[in-house]
Amino acid sequence: MAADRSHKTLEQRIGEIEDRLEIYNLIASHPPSADTANGSYVASVWTEDGVFDRGAEFPRPTGRAAIAGGSSNPEHHRAIELGIAHFAGLPHVRIDGDAAVAISYLQILVPDRVGPVFDVPNHGAGRGFHVHRVSANRWEFVRTADGWKIKSRTLRPLDGTPPARDLLRGALEPRP
Amino acid sequence: MAADRSHKTLEQRIGEIEDRLEIYNLIASHPPSADTANGSYVASVWTEDGVFDRGAEFPRPTGRAAIAGGSSNPEHHRAIELGIAHFAGLPHVRIDGDAAVAISYLQILVPDRVGPVFDVPNHGAGRGFHVHRVSANRWEFVRTADGWKIKSRTLRPLDGTPPARDLLRGALEPRP
Amino acid sequence: MAADRSHKTLEQRIGEIEDRLEIYNLIASHPPSADTANGSYVASVWTEDGVFDRGAEFPRPTGRAAIAGGSSNPEHHRAIELGIAHFAGLPHVRIDGDAAVAISYLQILVPDRVGPVFDVPNHGAGRGFHVHRVSANRWEFVRTADGWKIKSRTLRPLDGTPPARDLLRGALEPRP
Repeated sequence: MAADRSHKTLEQRIGEIEDRLEIYNLIASHPPSADTANGSYVASVWTEDGVFDRGAEFPRPTGRAAIAGGSSNPEHHRAIELGIAHFAGLPHVRIDGDAAVAISYLQILVPDRVGPVFDVPNHGAGRGFHVHRVSANRWEFVRTADGWKIKSRTLRPLDGTPPARDLLRGALEPRP
Repeated sequence: MAADRSHKTLEQRIGEIEDRLEIYNLIASHPPSADTANGSYVASVWTEDGVFDRGAEFPRPTGRAAIAGGSSNPEHHRAIELGIAHFAGLPHVRIDGDAAVAISYLQILVPDRVGPVFDVPNHGAGRGFHVHRVSANRWEFVRTADGWKIKSRTLRPLDGTPPARDLLRGALEPRP
Repeated sequence: MAADRSHKTLEQRIGEIEDRLEIYNLIASHPPSADTANGSYVASVWTEDGVFDRGAEFPRPTGRAAIAGGSSNPEHHRAIELGIAHFAGLPHVRIDGDAAVAISYLQILVPDRVGPVFDVPNHGAGRGFHVHRVSANRWEFVRTADGWKIKSRTLRPLDGTPPARDLLRGALEPRP
Protein backbone atom coordinates (compact mmCIF):
# COMPACT_ATOMS: atom_id res chain seq x y z
CA MET A 1 0.00 0.00 0.00
CA ALA A 2 2.78 2.46 0.96
CA ALA A 3 4.39 2.42 -2.47
CA ASP A 4 1.17 3.48 -4.18
CA ARG A 5 0.42 6.51 -2.08
CA SER A 6 2.23 9.08 -4.19
CA HIS A 7 0.18 8.94 -7.36
CA LYS A 8 -3.31 8.79 -5.92
CA THR A 9 -5.55 11.66 -4.91
CA LEU A 10 -6.58 12.00 -1.30
CA GLU A 11 -10.10 11.09 -2.32
CA GLN A 12 -8.92 7.91 -4.01
CA ARG A 13 -6.97 6.96 -0.92
CA ILE A 14 -9.96 7.61 1.34
CA GLY A 15 -12.16 5.56 -0.98
CA GLU A 16 -9.81 2.59 -0.78
CA ILE A 17 -9.78 2.77 2.99
CA GLU A 18 -13.59 2.84 3.04
CA ASP A 19 -13.59 -0.18 0.74
CA ARG A 20 -11.36 -2.02 3.14
CA LEU A 21 -13.56 -1.24 6.14
CA GLU A 22 -16.70 -2.23 4.24
CA ILE A 23 -15.11 -5.58 3.47
CA TYR A 24 -14.14 -6.06 7.11
CA ASN A 25 -17.81 -5.58 8.00
CA LEU A 26 -18.92 -8.04 5.33
CA ILE A 27 -16.60 -10.69 6.75
CA ALA A 28 -17.63 -9.81 10.32
CA SER A 29 -21.31 -10.21 9.47
CA HIS A 30 -20.82 -13.77 8.23
CA PRO A 31 -20.83 -15.49 11.63
CA PRO A 32 -23.99 -13.64 12.77
CA SER A 33 -25.75 -14.49 9.50
CA ALA A 34 -24.69 -18.15 9.71
CA ASP A 35 -25.59 -18.52 13.40
CA THR A 36 -29.06 -17.05 12.82
CA ALA A 37 -29.70 -18.70 9.41
CA ASN A 38 -30.68 -15.38 7.88
CA GLY A 39 -31.25 -16.34 4.26
CA SER A 40 -32.45 -12.93 3.10
CA TYR A 41 -29.37 -11.23 4.52
CA VAL A 42 -27.16 -13.87 2.90
CA ALA A 43 -28.86 -13.21 -0.44
CA SER A 44 -28.17 -9.47 -0.08
CA VAL A 45 -24.40 -9.88 0.23
CA TRP A 46 -23.78 -12.30 -2.67
CA THR A 47 -23.67 -11.60 -6.39
CA GLU A 48 -26.30 -13.20 -8.57
CA ASP A 49 -23.73 -15.71 -9.89
CA GLY A 50 -21.87 -16.35 -6.63
CA VAL A 51 -20.19 -19.68 -5.86
CA PHE A 52 -19.85 -21.09 -2.35
CA ASP A 53 -17.43 -24.00 -2.26
CA ARG A 54 -16.94 -25.83 1.06
CA GLY A 55 -15.03 -28.73 -0.51
CA ALA A 56 -15.98 -32.14 -1.86
CA GLU A 57 -17.58 -33.16 1.46
CA PHE A 58 -20.45 -30.66 1.11
CA PRO A 59 -22.90 -29.37 -1.54
CA ARG A 60 -21.51 -26.54 -3.68
CA PRO A 61 -24.36 -24.06 -4.24
CA THR A 62 -24.07 -21.73 -7.21
CA GLY A 63 -26.08 -18.53 -7.46
CA ARG A 64 -27.44 -16.22 -4.80
CA ALA A 65 -30.72 -18.10 -4.35
CA ALA A 66 -29.09 -21.50 -3.84
CA ILE A 67 -26.53 -20.09 -1.41
CA ALA A 68 -29.19 -18.29 0.63
CA GLY A 69 -31.31 -21.45 0.65
CA GLY A 70 -28.41 -23.57 1.87
CA SER A 71 -27.79 -21.19 4.75
CA SER A 72 -31.28 -21.67 6.13
CA ASN A 73 -32.14 -25.33 5.55
CA PRO A 74 -33.60 -27.58 8.29
CA GLU A 75 -30.27 -29.31 8.95
CA HIS A 76 -28.64 -25.94 9.54
CA HIS A 77 -31.44 -24.98 11.93
CA ARG A 78 -30.71 -28.14 13.92
CA ALA A 79 -27.07 -27.05 14.21
CA ILE A 80 -28.24 -23.67 15.49
CA GLU A 81 -30.40 -25.31 18.14
CA LEU A 82 -27.30 -27.16 19.32
CA GLY A 83 -25.61 -23.76 19.84
CA ILE A 84 -23.24 -23.65 16.87
CA ALA A 85 -20.91 -20.62 16.78
CA HIS A 86 -18.90 -19.38 13.82
CA PHE A 87 -15.84 -17.41 14.92
CA ALA A 88 -13.80 -15.24 12.51
CA GLY A 89 -10.15 -14.31 12.96
CA LEU A 90 -8.44 -11.18 11.60
CA PRO A 91 -8.60 -11.40 7.78
CA HIS A 92 -5.95 -10.41 5.25
CA VAL A 93 -7.61 -8.11 2.69
CA ARG A 94 -6.24 -6.77 -0.58
CA ILE A 95 -8.18 -4.34 -2.80
CA ASP A 96 -7.45 -3.99 -6.51
CA GLY A 97 -9.80 -1.47 -8.08
CA ASP A 98 -13.26 -2.99 -8.25
CA ALA A 99 -12.15 -6.40 -6.99
CA ALA A 100 -10.87 -7.58 -3.64
CA VAL A 101 -9.55 -10.80 -2.14
CA ALA A 102 -9.57 -11.75 1.52
CA ILE A 103 -7.93 -14.75 3.17
CA SER A 104 -9.29 -15.60 6.59
CA TYR A 105 -9.50 -18.32 9.21
CA LEU A 106 -12.79 -19.51 10.61
CA GLN A 107 -13.56 -21.69 13.61
CA ILE A 108 -16.83 -23.54 14.08
CA LEU A 109 -17.55 -24.35 17.71
CA VAL A 110 -20.33 -26.37 19.31
CA PRO A 111 -21.28 -26.75 22.98
CA ASP A 112 -19.68 -29.87 24.43
CA ARG A 113 -22.32 -32.36 25.64
CA VAL A 114 -20.06 -35.10 26.98
CA GLY A 115 -16.95 -33.64 28.64
CA PRO A 116 -16.39 -32.77 32.30
CA VAL A 117 -17.94 -29.65 33.86
CA PHE A 118 -15.45 -26.88 34.66
CA ASP A 119 -16.24 -24.18 37.20
CA VAL A 120 -14.19 -21.05 36.52
CA PRO A 121 -14.28 -18.36 39.25
CA ASN A 122 -16.35 -15.33 38.17
CA HIS A 123 -17.10 -17.04 34.83
CA GLY A 124 -19.67 -19.74 35.59
CA ALA A 125 -19.67 -23.52 35.28
CA GLY A 126 -20.22 -25.68 32.23
CA ARG A 127 -18.89 -28.24 29.80
CA GLY A 128 -17.65 -25.52 27.49
CA PHE A 129 -17.23 -25.73 23.73
CA HIS A 130 -15.64 -28.08 21.28
CA VAL A 131 -13.80 -26.66 18.24
CA HIS A 132 -15.47 -28.73 15.54
CA ARG A 133 -13.70 -27.31 12.48
CA VAL A 134 -10.99 -24.81 11.57
CA SER A 135 -10.91 -23.73 7.95
CA ALA A 136 -8.97 -21.49 5.58
CA ASN A 137 -11.23 -19.21 3.55
CA ARG A 138 -10.69 -17.34 0.31
CA TRP A 139 -13.25 -14.61 -0.40
CA GLU A 140 -13.51 -12.83 -3.73
CA PHE A 141 -15.47 -9.58 -3.70
CA VAL A 142 -16.61 -7.25 -6.48
CA ARG A 143 -17.79 -3.68 -6.29
CA THR A 144 -21.37 -3.20 -7.48
CA ALA A 145 -23.77 -0.28 -7.62
CA ASP A 146 -25.10 -1.56 -4.27
CA GLY A 147 -21.73 -1.83 -2.54
CA TRP A 148 -19.27 -4.71 -2.30
CA LYS A 149 -20.67 -8.21 -2.77
CA ILE A 150 -19.26 -11.70 -2.39
CA LYS A 151 -18.57 -13.34 -5.75
CA SER A 152 -17.03 -16.51 -4.40
CA ARG A 153 -16.03 -18.06 -1.13
CA THR A 154 -13.91 -21.18 -1.00
CA LEU A 155 -13.06 -22.90 2.23
CA ARG A 156 -10.88 -25.88 2.99
CA PRO A 157 -10.35 -27.60 6.34
CA LEU A 158 -7.01 -27.31 8.10
CA ASP A 159 -6.35 -31.01 8.48
CA GLY A 160 -2.81 -31.54 7.25
CA THR A 161 -3.76 -31.98 3.58
CA PRO A 162 -2.47 -29.51 0.95
CA PRO A 163 -5.66 -27.69 -0.22
CA ALA A 164 -5.93 -25.40 2.82
CA ARG A 165 -2.25 -24.48 2.50
CA ASP A 166 -2.64 -23.70 -1.21
CA LEU A 167 -5.47 -21.36 -0.33
CA LEU A 168 -3.60 -19.64 2.53
CA ARG A 169 -0.73 -18.70 0.21
CA GLY A 170 -3.09 -16.12 -1.29
CA ALA A 171 -2.36 -13.94 1.76
CA LEU A 172 1.39 -13.92 1.13
CA GLU A 173 1.72 -11.14 -1.40
CA PRO A 174 5.27 -10.56 -2.63
CA ARG A 175 6.98 -7.74 -0.77
CA PRO A 176 10.08 -5.76 -1.70
CA MET B 1 -20.95 3.23 3.68
CA ALA B 2 -20.53 3.47 -0.11
CA ALA B 3 -23.87 5.16 -0.64
CA ASP B 4 -23.02 7.98 1.76
CA ARG B 5 -19.71 9.00 0.28
CA SER B 6 -20.96 11.62 -2.17
CA HIS B 7 -22.36 14.19 0.24
CA LYS B 8 -19.64 14.17 2.86
CA THR B 9 -16.46 16.24 2.92
CA LEU B 10 -13.13 14.45 2.83
CA GLU B 11 -12.57 15.53 6.40
CA GLN B 12 -15.85 14.02 7.53
CA ARG B 13 -14.99 10.78 5.80
CA ILE B 14 -11.55 10.68 7.40
CA GLY B 15 -13.11 11.40 10.79
CA GLU B 16 -15.50 8.47 10.42
CA ILE B 17 -12.64 6.16 9.53
CA GLU B 18 -10.69 7.33 12.58
CA ASP B 19 -13.79 6.68 14.69
CA ARG B 20 -13.96 3.17 13.35
CA LEU B 21 -10.32 2.45 14.11
CA GLU B 22 -10.60 3.93 17.58
CA ILE B 23 -13.50 1.58 18.27
CA TYR B 24 -11.51 -1.40 16.97
CA ASN B 25 -8.82 -0.53 19.51
CA LEU B 26 -11.38 -0.21 22.30
CA ILE B 27 -12.69 -3.70 21.55
CA ALA B 28 -9.15 -5.06 21.16
CA SER B 29 -8.14 -3.68 24.54
CA HIS B 30 -10.94 -5.53 26.32
CA PRO B 31 -9.20 -8.94 26.55
CA PRO B 32 -5.96 -7.40 27.88
CA SER B 33 -7.88 -5.38 30.47
CA ALA B 34 -9.94 -8.41 31.53
CA ASP B 35 -6.95 -10.76 31.69
CA THR B 36 -4.98 -8.31 33.85
CA ALA B 37 -7.95 -7.10 35.98
CA ASN B 38 -7.05 -3.48 35.30
CA GLY B 39 -9.88 -1.67 37.06
CA SER B 40 -8.58 1.84 36.43
CA TYR B 41 -8.28 1.21 32.71
CA VAL B 42 -11.77 -0.28 32.67
CA ALA B 43 -13.09 2.85 34.41
CA SER B 44 -11.44 5.04 31.76
CA VAL B 45 -13.29 3.42 28.83
CA TRP B 46 -16.84 3.39 30.24
CA THR B 47 -19.31 6.23 30.55
CA GLU B 48 -20.35 7.30 34.04
CA ASP B 49 -23.75 5.60 33.57
CA GLY B 50 -22.55 2.49 31.70
CA VAL B 51 -24.36 -0.86 31.97
CA PHE B 52 -22.57 -4.21 31.70
CA ASP B 53 -25.05 -7.04 31.29
CA ARG B 54 -23.68 -10.62 31.17
CA GLY B 55 -27.13 -12.21 31.52
CA ALA B 56 -29.21 -13.48 34.44
CA GLU B 57 -26.46 -15.85 35.58
CA PHE B 58 -24.14 -13.00 36.64
CA PRO B 59 -24.29 -9.65 38.49
CA ARG B 60 -25.26 -6.69 36.30
CA PRO B 61 -23.11 -3.73 37.39
CA THR B 62 -24.39 -0.26 36.52
CA GLY B 63 -22.10 2.76 36.48
CA ARG B 64 -18.40 3.09 35.78
CA ALA B 65 -17.31 2.46 39.38
CA ALA B 66 -19.31 -0.75 39.77
CA ILE B 67 -18.12 -2.09 36.41
CA ALA B 68 -14.49 -1.33 37.20
CA GLY B 69 -14.88 -2.94 40.62
CA GLY B 70 -16.39 -6.09 39.14
CA SER B 71 -13.47 -6.43 36.76
CA SER B 72 -10.95 -6.61 39.58
CA ASN B 73 -12.64 -8.55 42.39
CA PRO B 74 -10.93 -11.47 44.20
CA GLU B 75 -12.87 -14.12 42.27
CA HIS B 76 -11.70 -12.61 39.01
CA HIS B 77 -8.11 -12.62 40.27
CA ARG B 78 -8.46 -16.35 40.95
CA ALA B 79 -9.54 -16.86 37.33
CA ILE B 80 -6.45 -14.94 36.20
CA GLU B 81 -4.19 -17.15 38.29
CA LEU B 82 -5.69 -20.15 36.50
CA GLY B 83 -4.59 -18.61 33.18
CA ILE B 84 -7.92 -17.33 31.80
CA ALA B 85 -7.73 -15.85 28.29
CA HIS B 86 -10.34 -13.67 26.61
CA PHE B 87 -10.14 -13.90 22.82
CA ALA B 88 -11.93 -11.44 20.50
CA GLY B 89 -12.97 -12.17 16.93
CA LEU B 90 -13.38 -9.61 14.14
CA PRO B 91 -16.22 -7.26 15.20
CA HIS B 92 -18.94 -5.74 13.04
CA VAL B 93 -18.94 -1.97 13.68
CA ARG B 94 -21.43 0.65 12.54
CA ILE B 95 -20.97 4.37 13.27
CA ASP B 96 -23.90 6.78 13.26
CA GLY B 97 -22.75 10.29 14.14
CA ASP B 98 -21.87 10.36 17.82
CA ALA B 99 -23.05 6.82 18.49
CA ALA B 100 -21.75 3.44 17.38
CA VAL B 101 -22.79 -0.18 17.73
CA ALA B 102 -20.52 -3.20 17.50
CA ILE B 103 -21.49 -6.86 17.43
CA SER B 104 -18.69 -9.25 18.27
CA TYR B 105 -17.91 -12.79 19.35
CA LEU B 106 -15.80 -13.54 22.39
CA GLN B 107 -14.21 -16.77 23.55
CA ILE B 108 -13.08 -17.39 27.12
CA LEU B 109 -10.42 -20.08 27.37
CA VAL B 110 -8.79 -21.69 30.40
CA PRO B 111 -5.80 -24.04 30.61
CA ASP B 112 -6.96 -27.64 30.69
CA ARG B 113 -5.92 -29.38 33.93
CA VAL B 114 -7.31 -32.84 33.28
CA GLY B 115 -6.95 -33.81 29.60
CA PRO B 116 -4.13 -35.72 27.91
CA VAL B 117 -0.78 -34.06 27.16
CA PHE B 118 -0.14 -33.38 23.47
CA ASP B 119 3.36 -32.88 22.12
CA VAL B 120 3.30 -30.85 18.91
CA PRO B 121 6.59 -30.67 16.95
CA ASN B 122 8.20 -27.21 17.24
CA HIS B 123 5.32 -26.06 19.48
CA GLY B 124 5.91 -27.67 22.87
CA ALA B 125 3.96 -30.14 24.96
CA GLY B 126 0.99 -29.52 27.22
CA ARG B 127 -2.65 -30.17 28.04
CA GLY B 128 -3.70 -27.14 26.03
CA PHE B 129 -6.78 -25.00 26.59
CA HIS B 130 -10.45 -25.57 27.11
CA VAL B 131 -12.95 -23.17 25.47
CA HIS B 132 -15.07 -22.39 28.50
CA ARG B 133 -17.54 -19.96 26.95
CA VAL B 134 -18.41 -18.43 23.57
CA SER B 135 -20.63 -15.37 23.69
CA ALA B 136 -22.31 -12.87 21.40
CA ASN B 137 -21.64 -9.26 22.43
CA ARG B 138 -23.43 -6.02 21.67
CA TRP B 139 -21.44 -2.88 22.44
CA GLU B 140 -22.94 0.60 22.38
CA PHE B 141 -20.45 3.46 22.22
CA VAL B 142 -20.86 7.22 22.49
CA ARG B 143 -18.50 9.99 21.47
CA THR B 144 -17.38 12.16 24.39
CA ALA B 145 -14.94 15.04 24.79
CA ASP B 146 -12.41 12.37 25.87
CA GLY B 147 -12.94 10.06 22.90
CA TRP B 148 -15.29 7.14 22.40
CA LYS B 149 -16.57 5.40 25.52
CA ILE B 150 -18.59 2.27 26.18
CA LYS B 151 -22.16 3.06 27.21
CA SER B 152 -23.38 -0.51 27.37
CA ARG B 153 -22.17 -4.00 26.71
CA THR B 154 -24.56 -6.92 26.64
CA LEU B 155 -23.39 -10.48 26.18
CA ARG B 156 -25.28 -13.71 25.85
CA PRO B 157 -23.87 -17.24 25.65
CA LEU B 158 -24.09 -19.17 22.40
CA ASP B 159 -25.84 -22.23 23.79
CA GLY B 160 -28.74 -22.88 21.45
CA THR B 161 -31.17 -20.54 23.23
CA PRO B 162 -32.62 -17.50 21.41
CA PRO B 163 -31.08 -14.50 23.26
CA ALA B 164 -27.65 -14.75 21.59
CA ARG B 165 -29.28 -15.01 18.17
CA ASP B 166 -31.45 -11.96 18.86
CA LEU B 167 -28.34 -10.02 19.71
CA LEU B 168 -26.37 -11.21 16.66
CA ARG B 169 -29.08 -9.92 14.31
CA GLY B 170 -27.82 -6.43 15.15
CA ALA B 171 -24.92 -7.07 12.74
CA LEU B 172 -27.23 -7.77 9.81
CA GLU B 173 -27.98 -4.29 8.56
CA PRO B 174 -30.38 -4.18 5.62
CA ARG B 175 -28.56 -3.89 2.30
CA PRO B 176 -29.87 -2.87 -1.11
CA MET C 1 -6.39 9.39 18.23
CA ALA C 2 -9.28 11.87 18.59
CA ALA C 3 -7.22 14.41 20.49
CA ASP C 4 -4.57 14.58 17.76
CA ARG C 5 -6.84 15.28 14.84
CA SER C 6 -6.80 19.06 14.98
CA HIS C 7 -3.14 19.76 14.23
CA LYS C 8 -2.59 17.24 11.43
CA THR C 9 -3.17 17.70 7.72
CA LEU C 10 -5.72 15.51 5.99
CA GLU C 11 -2.88 13.80 4.19
CA GLN C 12 -1.11 13.01 7.45
CA ARG C 13 -4.31 11.58 8.86
CA ILE C 14 -4.87 9.43 5.77
CA GLY C 15 -1.27 8.23 5.93
CA GLU C 16 -1.71 7.13 9.54
CA ILE C 17 -4.85 5.22 8.64
CA GLU C 18 -3.03 3.48 5.79
CA ASP C 19 -0.23 2.61 8.22
CA ARG C 20 -2.76 1.04 10.53
CA LEU C 21 -4.34 -1.05 7.79
CA GLU C 22 -0.95 -2.16 6.49
CA ILE C 23 -0.09 -3.37 9.98
CA TYR C 24 -3.40 -5.23 10.24
CA ASN C 25 -2.46 -7.06 7.05
CA LEU C 26 1.01 -7.86 8.36
CA ILE C 27 -0.50 -9.44 11.47
CA ALA C 28 -3.17 -11.22 9.40
CA SER C 29 -0.52 -12.73 7.12
CA HIS C 30 1.32 -14.34 10.02
CA PRO C 31 -0.94 -17.40 10.40
CA PRO C 32 -0.86 -18.16 6.64
CA SER C 33 2.93 -17.81 6.57
CA ALA C 34 3.34 -20.01 9.66
CA ASP C 35 0.89 -22.67 8.46
CA THR C 36 2.64 -22.91 5.08
CA ALA C 37 6.24 -22.55 6.39
CA ASN C 38 6.95 -19.82 3.85
CA GLY C 39 10.48 -18.81 4.81
CA SER C 40 10.99 -16.33 2.00
CA TYR C 41 7.80 -14.47 2.88
CA VAL C 42 8.82 -14.45 6.53
CA ALA C 43 12.19 -12.97 5.56
CA SER C 44 10.44 -10.22 3.59
CA VAL C 45 8.44 -8.92 6.58
CA TRP C 46 11.22 -8.79 9.20
CA THR C 47 13.98 -6.23 9.62
CA GLU C 48 17.55 -7.39 9.16
CA ASP C 49 18.11 -7.28 12.94
CA GLY C 50 14.71 -8.63 14.04
CA VAL C 51 14.26 -10.62 17.25
CA PHE C 52 11.63 -13.35 17.67
CA ASP C 53 11.25 -14.33 21.30
CA ARG C 54 8.85 -17.19 22.15
CA GLY C 55 10.07 -17.50 25.76
CA ALA C 56 12.67 -19.64 27.50
CA GLU C 57 11.06 -22.87 26.29
CA PHE C 58 12.00 -22.25 22.64
CA PRO C 59 14.99 -21.03 20.57
CA ARG C 60 15.21 -17.23 20.23
CA PRO C 61 16.32 -16.51 16.65
CA THR C 62 17.91 -13.12 15.99
CA GLY C 63 18.14 -11.65 12.52
CA ARG C 64 15.96 -12.08 9.46
CA ALA C 65 17.77 -15.17 8.16
CA ALA C 66 17.55 -17.09 11.43
CA ILE C 67 13.89 -16.22 11.91
CA ALA C 68 13.01 -17.29 8.36
CA GLY C 69 14.98 -20.51 8.83
CA GLY C 70 13.19 -21.32 12.08
CA SER C 71 9.82 -20.91 10.38
CA SER C 72 10.56 -23.60 7.83
CA ASN C 73 12.58 -26.25 9.66
CA PRO C 74 11.75 -30.00 9.45
CA GLU C 75 10.08 -30.05 12.87
CA HIS C 76 7.78 -27.24 11.79
CA HIS C 77 6.92 -29.15 8.61
CA ARG C 78 5.88 -32.10 10.76
CA ALA C 79 3.52 -29.82 12.68
CA ILE C 80 2.04 -28.65 9.38
CA GLU C 81 1.43 -32.24 8.28
CA LEU C 82 -0.51 -32.75 11.51
CA GLY C 83 -2.79 -29.87 10.48
CA ILE C 84 -1.56 -27.08 12.77
CA ALA C 85 -3.57 -23.83 12.55
CA HIS C 86 -2.51 -20.44 13.86
CA PHE C 87 -5.51 -18.23 14.63
CA ALA C 88 -5.21 -14.46 15.25
CA GLY C 89 -7.66 -12.36 17.24
CA LEU C 90 -8.35 -8.64 16.79
CA PRO C 91 -5.08 -6.81 17.61
CA HIS C 92 -4.63 -3.52 19.46
CA VAL C 93 -2.41 -1.29 17.30
CA ARG C 94 -0.83 2.04 18.14
CA ILE C 95 1.20 4.07 15.62
CA ASP C 96 3.75 6.65 16.71
CA GLY C 97 5.45 8.22 13.70
CA ASP C 98 7.76 5.62 12.15
CA ALA C 99 7.21 3.05 14.88
CA ALA C 100 4.19 1.00 15.89
CA VAL C 101 3.29 -1.47 18.62
CA ALA C 102 0.61 -4.13 18.44
CA ILE C 103 -0.65 -6.37 21.22
CA SER C 104 -2.51 -9.45 20.05
CA TYR C 105 -3.73 -12.87 21.09
CA LEU C 106 -2.87 -15.99 19.14
CA GLN C 107 -4.28 -19.51 19.33
CA ILE C 108 -2.49 -22.56 18.00
CA LEU C 109 -4.86 -25.42 17.24
CA VAL C 110 -4.17 -28.99 16.14
CA PRO C 111 -6.58 -31.67 14.93
CA ASP C 112 -7.61 -33.91 17.80
CA ARG C 113 -6.53 -37.54 17.22
CA VAL C 114 -7.93 -39.13 20.37
CA GLY C 115 -11.27 -37.57 21.35
CA PRO C 116 -14.78 -38.69 20.44
CA VAL C 117 -16.23 -38.06 16.97
CA PHE C 118 -18.95 -35.39 16.84
CA ASP C 119 -21.45 -35.23 14.01
CA VAL C 120 -22.85 -31.71 13.64
CA PRO C 121 -25.83 -31.31 11.27
CA ASN C 122 -24.83 -29.55 8.04
CA HIS C 123 -21.22 -29.30 9.28
CA GLY C 124 -19.75 -32.79 8.97
CA ALA C 125 -18.36 -35.29 11.45
CA GLY C 126 -14.96 -35.42 13.06
CA ARG C 127 -12.85 -35.30 16.21
CA GLY C 128 -12.42 -31.56 15.87
CA PHE C 129 -9.51 -29.49 17.10
CA HIS C 130 -7.57 -29.10 20.29
CA VAL C 131 -6.44 -25.60 21.37
CA HIS C 132 -2.79 -26.37 22.04
CA ARG C 133 -1.60 -22.91 23.06
CA VAL C 134 -2.95 -19.41 23.66
CA SER C 135 -0.37 -16.66 23.79
CA ALA C 136 -0.08 -12.91 24.29
CA ASN C 137 2.02 -11.24 21.58
CA ARG C 138 3.83 -7.91 21.46
CA TRP C 139 4.84 -6.79 17.98
CA GLU C 140 7.16 -3.85 17.34
CA PHE C 141 7.13 -2.49 13.79
CA VAL C 142 9.26 0.12 12.04
CA ARG C 143 8.61 2.00 8.85
CA THR C 144 11.22 1.33 6.14
CA ALA C 145 11.62 2.36 2.52
CA ASP C 146 9.95 -0.98 1.67
CA GLY C 147 6.96 -0.53 3.96
CA TRP C 148 6.39 -1.57 7.58
CA LYS C 149 8.54 -4.41 8.89
CA ILE C 150 8.58 -6.44 12.09
CA LYS C 151 11.46 -5.46 14.36
CA SER C 152 10.55 -7.71 17.24
CA ARG C 153 7.85 -10.13 18.28
CA THR C 154 7.64 -11.41 21.82
CA LEU C 155 5.10 -13.98 22.87
CA ARG C 156 4.30 -15.48 26.24
CA PRO C 157 1.82 -18.26 27.02
CA LEU C 158 -1.35 -17.46 28.93
CA ASP C 159 -0.87 -19.98 31.72
CA GLY C 160 -1.47 -18.05 34.92
CA THR C 161 2.13 -16.82 35.28
CA PRO C 162 2.90 -13.07 35.20
CA PRO C 163 4.88 -12.62 31.92
CA ALA C 164 1.84 -12.78 29.62
CA ARG C 165 0.01 -10.25 31.80
CA ASP C 166 3.01 -7.89 31.79
CA LEU C 167 2.98 -8.02 28.02
CA LEU C 168 -0.80 -7.48 27.69
CA ARG C 169 -0.61 -4.25 29.70
CA GLY C 170 1.01 -2.71 26.62
CA ALA C 171 -2.49 -2.48 25.11
CA LEU C 172 -3.84 -0.40 28.00
CA GLU C 173 -2.78 3.08 27.00
CA PRO C 174 -3.72 5.78 29.50
CA ARG C 175 -6.94 7.58 28.56
CA PRO C 176 -8.32 10.91 29.79
